[in-house]
Amino acid sequence: MLSFIRPVIYVCGFLVLIMSSMMLSVATFAWLRNDPETSVFLLSSAVSAAAGGGMVLSCRRAQFNLIARQLYLLTSLSWVMLSLAGALPLFFSHFDLSITDAVFEAVSGITTTGSTVLSGLQDLPASLLLWRSLLQWLGGLGVIGMAVSILPFLRVGGMRLFHTESSDWSDKSIPRIQSLARMLLLTYLGISLACILSYWAAGMTLFDAINHAMTTVSTGGYATDDRSMGRFGSGILWIAIVFMLIGALPFTMIIAFVRRPTLAVLNNQQAMGLLAIVAAISLPLAVVLILGRQYPPFEALTQATFNLVSVITTTGYASTDYLLWGPFSIALFFLVMFIGGCSGSTSGGMKVFRFQLSYLFLRSQISKLVHPNGVFITRYNGRPVQDDIILSAVGFSFLFFVTLAVVTLLLALLGLDLLTSVSATATALTNVGPGVGNVVGPAGNFASLPAAAKWLLSFAMLLGRLELLTLMVLFTPMFWRG
Amino acid sequence: MLSFIRPVIYVCGFLVLIMSSMMLSVATFAWLRNDPETSVFLLSSAVSAAAGGGMVLSCRRAQFNLIARQLYLLTSLSWVMLSLAGALPLFFSHFDLSITDAVFEAVSGITTTGSTVLSGLQDLPASLLLWRSLLQWLGGLGVIGMAVSILPFLRVGGMRLFHTESSDWSDKSIPRIQSLARMLLLTYLGISLACILSYWAAGMTLFDAINHAMTTVSTGGYATDDRSMGRFGSGILWIAIVFMLIGALPFTMIIAFVRRPTLAVLNNQQAMGLLAIVAAISLPLAVVLILGRQYPPFEALTQATFNLVSVITTTGYASTDYLLWGPFSIALFFLVMFIGGCSGSTSGGMKVFRFQLSYLFLRSQISKLVHPNGVFITRYNGRPVQDDIILSAVGFSFLFFVTLAVVTLLLALLGLDLLTSVSATATALTNVGPGVGNVVGPAGNFASLPAAAKWLLSFAMLLGRLELLTLMVLFTPMFWRG
Repeated sequence: MLSFIRPVIYVCGFLVLIMSSMMLSVATFAWLRNDPETSVFLLSSAVSAAAGGGMVLSCRRAQFNLIARQLYLLTSLSWVMLSLAGALPLFFSHFDLSITDAVFEAVSGITTTGSTVLSGLQDLPASLLLWRSLLQWLGGLGVIGMAVSILPFLRVGGMRLFHTESSDWSDKSIPRIQSLARMLLLTYLGISLACILSYWAAGMTLFDAINHAMTTVSTGGYATDDRSMGRFGSGILWIAIVFMLIGALPFTMIIAFVRRPTLAVLNNQQAMGLLAIVAAISLPLAVVLILGRQYPPFEALTQATFNLVSVITTTGYASTDYLLWGPFSIALFFLVMFIGGCSGSTSGGMKVFRFQLSYLFLRSQISKLVHPNGVFITRYNGRPVQDDIILSAVGFSFLFFVTLAVVTLLLALLGLDLLTSVSATATALTNVGPGVGNVVGPAGNFASLPAAAKWLLSFAMLLGRLELLTLMVLFTPMFWRG
Repeated sequence: MLSFIRPVIYVCGFLVLIMSSMMLSVATFAWLRNDPETSVFLLSSAVSAAAGGGMVLSCRRAQFNLIARQLYLLTSLSWVMLSLAGALPLFFSHFDLSITDAVFEAVSGITTTGSTVLSGLQDLPASLLLWRSLLQWLGGLGVIGMAVSILPFLRVGGMRLFHTESSDWSDKSIPRIQSLARMLLLTYLGISLACILSYWAAGMTLFDAINHAMTTVSTGGYATDDRSMGRFGSGILWIAIVFMLIGALPFTMIIAFVRRPTLAVLNNQQAMGLLAIVAAISLPLAVVLILGRQYPPFEALTQATFNLVSVITTTGYASTDYLLWGPFSIALFFLVMFIGGCSGSTSGGMKVFRFQLSYLFLRSQISKLVHPNGVFITRYNGRPVQDDIILSAVGFSFLFFVTLAVVTLLLALLGLDLLTSVSATATALTNVGPGVGNVVGPAGNFASLPAAAKWLLSFAMLLGRLELLTLMVLFTPMFWRG
């Protein structure tokens, strides 16, 4: 048992040390600005360094021949550790956040969900705002790394579809993995820099540009003001639309495009699917807004596209309270949440490829019932897809809805009304951020929920980020019996 | 094309003739009671006889070597024809029902949904009440017949799981099919008679007993009073619980039990699953009601079990407005709707076996990820289940939720609020009857919805009754290209 857990603790310790160094950077930033939270970040960094160092040192002689079960534990525990470390500066800060609120805010950050229990953001110390943004930026990097390096090996929700030779883990592929990791980090940094410069050029302060860029490319959605993106003009909104979409595209495609910028690289079924969905929904929504005389044409297109892209990429910014657009918009924004972006991106949700595989499966079902003796092969991105991968992807939607039902019931048991329960659960599982209704809608806040609800939703955010099964499996006796 | 459709029209004509003879029976009943609607039923019967006779005569030389595609068309068109014929007496009646309302009420009846646009039921002529009940009773018989004889042959939602030798259609099995059909009819009649006598003995008038028995065993839920079952005591409620559950069990199991009454016959995984779910939910719900001091213990158990069984069997009676029991009950009743009864019963919903297969699939997924090289066989009712049947069953849940989302959006576009849209759609697709919220909840009524919403919901009820794909496939170009 101990030898089973040691390598997991070892790697988690390293992650906590990375968090400690990030806190030290923010402490430096705070010290330069005479920020009142400087000591808070120094303290948090010291605590993290002690914890992370202890974990690394105590397990330094671990065996590193990881078996599948250890990968699940490692993956899940990493996110828990990052969240707990991320909560330290919030908990130690001068704002008297309870442990519950600090952990909720950190989990919401690191999973790039973006639900918040804080209000009066514009009055928070710059260091805390920067820390929230940094959590999302790191979480975005983490989820891409996980999607590229680990998930294709786990039998979870059809992610093995993306198990290609370039993600192989044999010894001879280590140089390729190192080069992939370097490309990933450089590309992510490059996109973030481009986003910072664009926001800055369009009129944001440099501090706002840095914060919003970090929460845009990670499709996280934390803002530095209670009005979210509502205080910016259409130029900034269109920049955000572009970078949120980039954050929701398969990152391996973006890396491939950076290496060899041809149109052929962009011919990715999942990426094109996402863009088609966005176009197919935002244009009619804009028409509805124009016909309802809510906005003049260009403003309608901007507002419709921005808020739709924000929800479908699971970012969660709002430029206005779109729930005031009427019953159709409320239903639309509630349902679009479930779609999400592409796998291998920073987005959450059920992911475009699962909808595409389920659609292809249904089409082949219909073909079979019209031609009972025909043979039909399902192809995705030009390659045939095995039945068991389709089954995993389709089965994911069943598990998703059962999880949604169970968490909704538990929230209702805590006294939340049906709409708040179901939309808070959905927005947590899909890592979007805002839900529907007065309490957790884009104009609301999660602060008023009971503590038990916040813990439940924190767990749901982690479940969503870990494609459900990766984390759930740890709660089965079968897993621990081995 | 003509030779493709002729046998379908021929069979549908026969069904319309059966409806005509039913109307004639109700006309006789009305004439004996001096009911003002006597002429209405005579007229409806004549119109049906003309239409049905014309269909039969014009297609009497049809080829009866049906191919798969004809079975889909026949199945779907049968339900449409039965609904249209069923709407005639309602449309011709002295109550000025619009075509929309007449068709909605008839579809809701024949699909055993039980949503109603009528109010002041206690003041309606007895003949019309009897007609509504009769529609549900016939619809219940029809859906069992369809589940036993046709669905196991269609590649729809995993129903091929129930394709056994006893449901084979080869020439030598015709005597067995005739005997099965006779057993089915006799058993259904027997259960209905037992229900009538029980209700009568427990204090209902004979007329009420007949009506409620017809809508109980068919899990339909039409009542003869706006208070639904709220005016009856706990004795009648427990009788209803028993017969609703019988209506939700696999009918082939009941037939087998009638033939050979041993406990071994009842050891059916789906039936036991349903009873386990009912026990697992109604007991805690009763405890919540007792703790909330809403009822004394026995009354709490009765109310909890009755309303839960009513929704889970997709009957849709209410003995009280359970939405007043608080947020947990609202969420519970909303979610339980989706489960439904067993396949091969009169119940709707997603069906217990699909949840069981999906659960078994998830369990095997987890086994595989713990033991990547293991081989796991999924067994159901003691027999191994093929992967493609699991895929169909799991895929059904995906299709169900996408259909739910699309119809919800369309209702919201008509101006209905989110809760009404989503719960009206859910209650139609699952053939339950009442939804959640003020408008379509157990204390509400569908009359106030816009006409377009009623047509949409009528279509959704048919979709639900036909396991979605059977009807949907008719709307694909692939189906008509052949």
